[in-house]
Amino acid sequence: MLVFLNGRFVRETEAGISVFDRGFLYGDGLFEAVRVANGRMFRWTEHFVRLEKGAWHLKLRLPLSNEQLRRRAEELICRNAAMDAVLRVTISRGIGQRGYSPQGATRPTVVMSLTPAQPIRGKRPPQWKVITSSVRLPAGEPLAMYKTCNKLPQILARAEADLCEADEALLLNTDGFVVEGSSSNLFWVQRGVVHTPPLASGILQGVTRSVVLDICRLMRLPTRETNVKVAQLRRAAGVFLSLSSWGVVGARSLDGHKLPDCPIIGSILAAYEELVWKETAGRQKR
Amino acid sequence: MLVFLNGRFVRETEAGISVFDRGFLYGDGLFEAVRVANGRMFRWTEHFVRLEKGAWHLKLRLPLSNEQLRRRAEELICRNAAMDAVLRVTISRGIGQRGYSPQGATRPTVVMSLTPAQPIRGKRPPQWKVITSSVRLPAGEPLAMYKTCNKLPQILARAEADLCEADEALLLNTDGFVVEGSSSNLFWVQRGVVHTPPLASGILQGVTRSVVLDICRLMRLPTRETNVKVAQLRRAAGVFLSLSSWGVVGARSLDGHKLPDCPIIGSILAAYEELVWKETAGRQKR
Repeated sequence: MLVFLNGRFVRETEAGISVFDRGFLYGDGLFEAVRVANGRMFRWTEHFVRLEKGAWHLKLRLPLSNEQLRRRAEELICRNAAMDAVLRVTISRGIGQRGYSPQGATRPTVVMSLTPAQPIRGKRPPQWKVITSSVRLPAGEPLAMYKTCNKLPQILARAEADLCEADEALLLNTDGFVVEGSSSNLFWVQRGVVHTPPLASGILQGVTRSVVLDICRLMRLPTRETNVKVAQLRRAAGVFLSLSSWGVVGARSLDGHKLPDCPIIGSILAAYEELVWKETAGRQKR
Repeated sequence: MLVFLNGRFVRETEAGISVFDRGFLYGDGLFEAVRVANGRMFRWTEHFVRLEKGAWHLKLRLPLSNEQLRRRAEELICRNAAMDAVLRVTISRGIGQRGYSPQGATRPTVVMSLTPAQPIRGKRPPQWKVITSSVRLPAGEPLAMYKTCNKLPQILARAEADLCEADEALLLNTDGFVVEGSSSNLFWVQRGVVHTPPLASGILQGVTRSVVLDICRLMRLPTRETNVKVAQLRRAAGVFLSLSSWGVVGARSLDGHKLPDCPIIGSILAAYEELVWKETAGRQKR
């Protein structure tokens, strides 16, 4: 596989950055994980917009425009002949002076790489075993909205899932509400309404989360942003997760408690897969 | 300058790590900044113990023992003929599978590097211009005790200090208490008592913080762990900061409000410098 690194396409084994890169020293950077299906990126612009907002928050100047970065990403996909994959875009602040001050760090590092994935179409939507983690996220944390390279809470939560042989861990915030998965946004169905925690609770502004809310509106399913406790989630008519790399995923159990199969979730999963297929396969068919 | 990288001593320009290192991807690592004076490390063991505790919390297996790492650090100092410097030790989880799960990442990356510093002895203790940052730290966050490579809140706080042409930014926690500086622990003097925020408020367990508390005990100065609001700090008889790279530093102003010169602080600074001198110059004199 080739990797894009600061303007060049290099082999994975040759893709090296300095030990003084602030991405390595402090996690001083941002990333995106973009689904590639049928050799094309799904919702690139939405990912770039979030990257741009995050860069603004961190006062990190993006060295490439939306179009420039997109073209390099497309070239990377093409050179690797990747049909179904996850594209990771990482922008770190690069090298600066010693210490936390970002002064002097004016040349960000740009890395893009691909990981092969399973094709979406026709695959039975996965049903994940989910646990709640002991790790707490700070309620209302502004940084949580962006995909920063500070992911230790998510790593620790995910490690708890690994220990339980679970597929994903849900995190509570410091107010005691279940807010998101380590790498997914949370949804649940209750009395025909599709609920998801509010952005203000301190969660990632997920691209797939927005797509799911759009799909619900198209399907005339009522949606609501709601704070939820674990007990309430266990009583839901159905629980599911959204994430760019997998799309939409059902939860079959929560902390060992079996969750019901909910037909609404199946319809959302199908609509999501259909949308990815349509948007990515479109041009190839012509 | 030479850098220690995974068992080898290499030139700074050649010290590269993979773009797939989890340190770069997620800030999945820990570091220490150790003062080097008279060509020797000050309080190495205390730094290593914190590193070890952090590694235990992150379930990251340290690839070198205390003695092994110390010997490599001493060799690095010797090879660079560094007399006064700051040694940075970074341990990241290395390369693993895609995603947050640490499974499969079994070979941590070890990096040590030096930055030249000013000698301590005889230098007039600096008096810093300090501001309070708008960034909030989660109260009671367990990860805060360790020096992890997730430092975006500290970077954002420090950037605010830069904007104000200040030397350091203090951070409040989500309970509204002032808890620490972006790269320092906080102390203040009130009615002859030296106060510092409690560890449980969600702060770094600073090595220099412990040394200062020890010095106060030796000087028979009463110490207390106290939660403090900004208004109370502004009324203190004196405010100072502790950090490994600088030692003990006075605060001459807080958010533009002049802080009093406090003789107790001067005595603590002098005692600290004396201690560093004694512990690091010891063997060389023989």
